[in-house]
Order: sequence, then C-alpha cells, then structure tokens
Amino acid sequence: MHNVASDTQQNLFLIAEIPGFTPQIGRLVSMLNYVRSTTLSAVESLGVDELDYLHDPQSNSIGSLLLHIAAAEVGYQAVTFQGRGLDEEEKRRWSAALELGDRARREIKGHELDYYVRTLEHVRGNTLVELRQRNDEWLDDSTSSSSGQRVNNYFKWFHVVGHEINHRGQIRWLRSRATKR
Amino acid sequence: MHNVASDTQQNLFLIAEIPGFTPQIGRLVSMLNYVRSTTLSAVESLGVDELDYLHDPQSNSIGSLLLHIAAAEVGYQAVTFQGRGLDEEEKRRWSAALELGDRARREIKGHELDYYVRTLEHVRGNTLVELRQRNDEWLDDSTSSSSGQRVNNYFKWFHVVGHEINHRGQIRWLRSRATKR
Repeated sequence: MHNVASDTQQNLFLIAEIPGFTPQIGRLVSMLNYVRSTTLSAVESLGVDELDYLHDPQSNSIGSLLLHIAAAEVGYQAVTFQGRGLDEEEKRRWSAALELGDRARREIKGHELDYYVRTLEHVRGNTLVELRQRNDEWLDDSTSSSSGQRVNNYFKWFHVVGHEINHRGQIRWLRSRATKR
Repeated sequence: MHNVASDTQQNLFLIAEIPGFTPQIGRLVSMLNYVRSTTLSAVESLGVDELDYLHDPQSNSIGSLLLHIAAAEVGYQAVTFQGRGLDEEEKRRWSAALELGDRARREIKGHELDYYVRTLEHVRGNTLVELRQRNDEWLDDSTSSSSGQRVNNYFKWFHVVGHEINHRGQIRWLRSRATKR
C-alpha cells in the first residue's frame, strides 16, 4: 500500500480529516483509501488466468478493469490538476485501458497481479502528492459541463471513487465466475 | 424523484452544501442524490422480463439488486438513526432482498420497474427526513467494529453510497446482457 494509505490503515473506517490534507480533502482521501483497500481485497491472490478470464465475447477481463480504474484516475488528474486532456504519450499508454472492449481484450493480458497493483499504486501516489498541495477552496472550484451544469473538483474526484467502486462490483461478479472453473 | 433530489437536480454535479442540511451532511446528500440518479438511469425503461433476467444459476436479477440497494439503506437507517438492528417486521419485509441468492430468485420477481423505483424513493425519503435532523458532529460520531476499529456515521453512509454504486455496476453489466436477447 502507498504510505498515506498505510498511515491511515487504522482509520480505514473513518471518513474524517487526515493530517497533511485540508479538512474536506482529508475526507475525500479517506474515501479513496477505503475504496482502494476493497478493490485490492477483491483481486487478492488472483493468478494470470483469472485476471485474463473473459466471461463472454463482450466481457472485459479483471486485469483490464484494474487498468481501467488506474487510467480513469490519470484522466481526472490531467483534468483537475492541470486543466487539460491526456497528451499524446498518455493516450498511447492508457487508451486501451480507457476504452476497454476489443483493443483491451487484445492488448491487456498476460500480466501478474503485481503489475496491476503497482500501476494502481503509482497513479494513486501522484494523486496524493497533488492533493496535499491543494485546499478545500480548490475542491469547491467548478467548471461548466457541455450541458452547462456546474461540476466541482469534489464531484470529479467523487466520480473517480465511484468509478472504481462500479468496476469493483463487476470484478467481484467476474471473480466468482473466473475462480470456479 | 424525491423532492430534495429534484430541488438539487440542477446541482447534480456539485458535491457541496445543500440548504436544509449541515455542511458535511449536505455533501453526503449530494453523493446520495447523484448516485441515485445514475442508478435510475441504469434501469430506465426496463420491462419485467429484463428486471427478472437471470444470467446464470448464481446470478441475481436486476430487480433483486434494486431491492437489495433499498434493503441495505433500511439496515443502515436502523443502525445509525436508531442504534439497533432490523426488527422482526423489517426482517420479514427485507431479508430476501438483503440476502439475495436462492430466496431472492424465488421471491423477487414479476414486478414492474415502478415498484422498485417507488420502494427506493420511499426508503430514501426516510433517510433524508432523518439526515435533516442531524448535524456534522453526529456524522463524526463513531462506534467500535467487531475488530475494534472505529467506524463513524460518515463512513457508514458513505458505505451505503458505495454499496449502491457497486451493485449499479453489476446492473449495468446485466442490463447489457438482458436487453440483447
């Protein structure tokens, strides 16, 4: 686990302030930490076969979903920390994972669990470095969506949290099928 | 949609204060509202056949998962608002939905979407009535888990939010299979 997560491991069931972060950002980081711990539990000790398991022709593998979780976080880092979309290099690195589907089924396979976990941790480490430098006013800052609705940074990062949970739900479903073959 | 949700419909992409709730509870209610809107989108216009669709013998139907989302919220209402578990009448009403599996497959079927939506809204209405009467100190109140870890009310309600997202992820997966038959 990343340092900040293990610092707060004993407070995994508190949504609360965390030293080093402003009060609201601490609550957000509590959510990020807790959800990540549940994602890692959901994939604990899976082997390559299970990580690559395709339930049916339209399914994504558990490995792809893990990389998809990391890729979405990279996308929101660019949007919220730098106010931009992914650059060309980032697109090359992440687009299969972002898009899922055929290309992900072709390209994302053969990796051990450790590869996915290290990727998730590396991306999360960058998120925490950036969040430490920001404050609650930044969390309230909003931009306008294409439909004209206000979207604040707290929402964007809550969406990252929810996105991970959404796919963790699918990972649990797939795991129970992948491991009983 | 419940009143509070529609009041704040124009702020669906803000995690922020909401009039009538204390500051932190407003942020929590923002999350509850947004996630509920995505759950309702995920099941929009599904018919009874799709709500009852069983992907395989261990699958839960979309209808069961919707009732499971409501049942978990009822459970957390009892725990956090009244400091108790479900009473006998609540168990009769909700245990099939809470437990899912065989009994839910047998008992939860044949309902129109409106039945599930009304149930979700009724339960949510009770949650919002209770949350309006509480404050940020209450949200920070914690109890001890069986393993001795502190668990605060914010965590418990964040868990309700996450539980809904988790199953919404499964609903989306099932919907794409149930509607292409």
